[in-house]
Amino acid sequence: MAKEIVLTGVTTTGTPHLGNYVGAIRPAIEASRQENTESYFFLADYHALIKCQDPERVQQSRLEIAATWLACGLDTNKATFYRQSDIPEIAELNWLLTCVTAKGLMNRAHAYKGAVDENLANDQDQDFGITMGLFCYPVLMAADILAFNAHKVPVGRDQIQHIEMARDIAGRFNHLFGQHFVLPEAVVGEEGSILKGLDGRKMSKSYNNTIPLFDTEKKLKKGVNKIKTNLLEPGEPKDPDDSIVFDIYKSFATAEQTEQMRQSFKDGIAWGEAKKELFTLINDQLSEPREKYLELMANPSHVEEILQAGAEKARARARSLISDLRNAVGLVNFK
Amino acid sequence: MAKEIVLTGVTTTGTPHLGNYVGAIRPAIEASRQENTESYFFLADYHALIKCQDPERVQQSRLEIAATWLACGLDTNKATFYRQSDIPEIAELNWLLTCVTAKGLMNRAHAYKGAVDENLANDQDQDFGITMGLFCYPVLMAADILAFNAHKVPVGRDQIQHIEMARDIAGRFNHLFGQHFVLPEAVVGEEGSILKGLDGRKMSKSYNNTIPLFDTEKKLKKGVNKIKTNLLEPGEPKDPDDSIVFDIYKSFATAEQTEQMRQSFKDGIAWGEAKKELFTLINDQLSEPREKYLELMANPSHVEEILQAGAEKARARARSLISDLRNAVGLVNFK
Repeated sequence: MAKEIVLTGVTTTGTPHLGNYVGAIRPAIEASRQENTESYFFLADYHALIKCQDPERVQQSRLEIAATWLACGLDTNKATFYRQSDIPEIAELNWLLTCVTAKGLMNRAHAYKGAVDENLANDQDQDFGITMGLFCYPVLMAADILAFNAHKVPVGRDQIQHIEMARDIAGRFNHLFGQHFVLPEAVVGEEGSILKGLDGRKMSKSYNNTIPLFDTEKKLKKGVNKIKTNLLEPGEPKDPDDSIVFDIYKSFATAEQTEQMRQSFKDGIAWGEAKKELFTLINDQLSEPREKYLELMANPSHVEEILQAGAEKARARARSLISDLRNAVGLVNFK
Repeated sequence: MAKEIVLTGVTTTGTPHLGNYVGAIRPAIEASRQENTESYFFLADYHALIKCQDPERVQQSRLEIAATWLACGLDTNKATFYRQSDIPEIAELNWLLTCVTAKGLMNRAHAYKGAVDENLANDQDQDFGITMGLFCYPVLMAADILAFNAHKVPVGRDQIQHIEMARDIAGRFNHLFGQHFVLPEAVVGEEGSILKGLDGRKMSKSYNNTIPLFDTEKKLKKGVNKIKTNLLEPGEPKDPDDSIVFDIYKSFATAEQTEQMRQSFKDGIAWGEAKKELFTLINDQLSEPREKYLELMANPSHVEEILQAGAEKARARARSLISDLRNAVGLVNFK
């Protein structure tokens, strides 16, 4: 039986934080170890250009994210790990798909509509400041997925629509030119995969409430100490289910450790003590990958080699599909 | 002094007719012989996909147009002759430009607005039946031009806006990421370069009033005989400036031949006779290239070789520019 293809992309504008680790990196790497799946991981650096015009940020983020995934144990012998911009077949497929995508479909994209609504609320022209990058983004995302005929795409809730659009575009192409594409399915992570940030909202760069993943031990400790708590004194019982510290703790702990901490909360553990235990728990899990991460960051040419090998693997697959598609639309070499 | 780069693209959906020859092929090939210019000619087969979902038509048209340009004397040692779809750098540049293009700019494109107006006139949703291919077309055209930093782009009046858009997009990219692009200029052909069709309107596939360029001699004669004339009898003086036959004649004749024919009209030449002379004039000029054309059509792999060599030449140039652009936006290999 053919393996199920699972594809995950990460936009390269940020620096990975604990929320990325718990919500995306850790589960994706675990999933990639399953026997019956074939995993594709890519750095979505073409997508990064939509929102980031700072070349150094894009460049730095690409390296940080690549090093993070490798340090966290991504097995590149099993999974295919590459940069989007190293696969010219994706840019080409992007155009083939552009030609069959209804403009009306893009008009309905949430991200675009959100930007329009904001403009209208500010008495601006509806497309003020909106680039074609933002508008065309779902087509490129469809190309990312369809270039490898991925079956499953793990995404957050806000991305479900884009997978539906990829299905729609794939279906339209199949209808016009024959069955070439698998219709991909969105896989939405469980509730538990969303880590809370310092302020209790979802940990996210845009809320400025993150704890860095692979900064120094000192910075990790500092981050943990900034987690919001209430004013209950040491000795007073605390409600674990109303605590950000506990919430983060359980994302890293075993069931047993979680139960023990739950008891400690009821027994009135001091916030300082609870944070210290949280720090130790996380730090123990991260110190080995952190070392690996720092090594990789200090050796970018090694990361480059790994990504080049991944690109070769990915291109071999994409090339054969694109060749079929070129045949289908009438772009065949003369014989 | 650096040579001036002139770029011409032909959408590969049709079969070349006499109007294409007089309006585009002949002047472009003449211009390409000038010492101070460097010419790029390409088969715009990505653009063809916007309006044509018939793979056999696209494929056939690519071969016919390539064979036509070669048969008409395009010197591929001097000019760079390639298929758009053989240059992955164009698809990549297309995305880089997409990210900096304002959506508002595309909203104003004539071709898109025309399609919207037609929908509204038919009480349809404004984007009914409009693909992203149509909407994004000016960005791809900008990529075609900017990939080679062309100075001049010969176009029909209806295409001037697209060149202005390419300038706009190039300027935006330069502003954000440094001076990388020349701002291209449109060169609009003279009035005389528009050939009339059988019915007196501009010769165009969409009017169904064309005479084929390289069909058989018999078909050429048949085509000429179908040109609309008035009911004046042999011997009656005829007005050359109100005659489609004369209009087409002068597009192929020397000044001297034109004067002689003008006199013949005043002397009352019979329509049959005038058409016979027109046929002879055209046929004498086309018989040699026609033979060449048929040879090339019978030997597609030879055309393929020429185009592959052209693609190599074109890519060498585009690659170095794209490499600079990747540096500029932050897509650099790790060292």
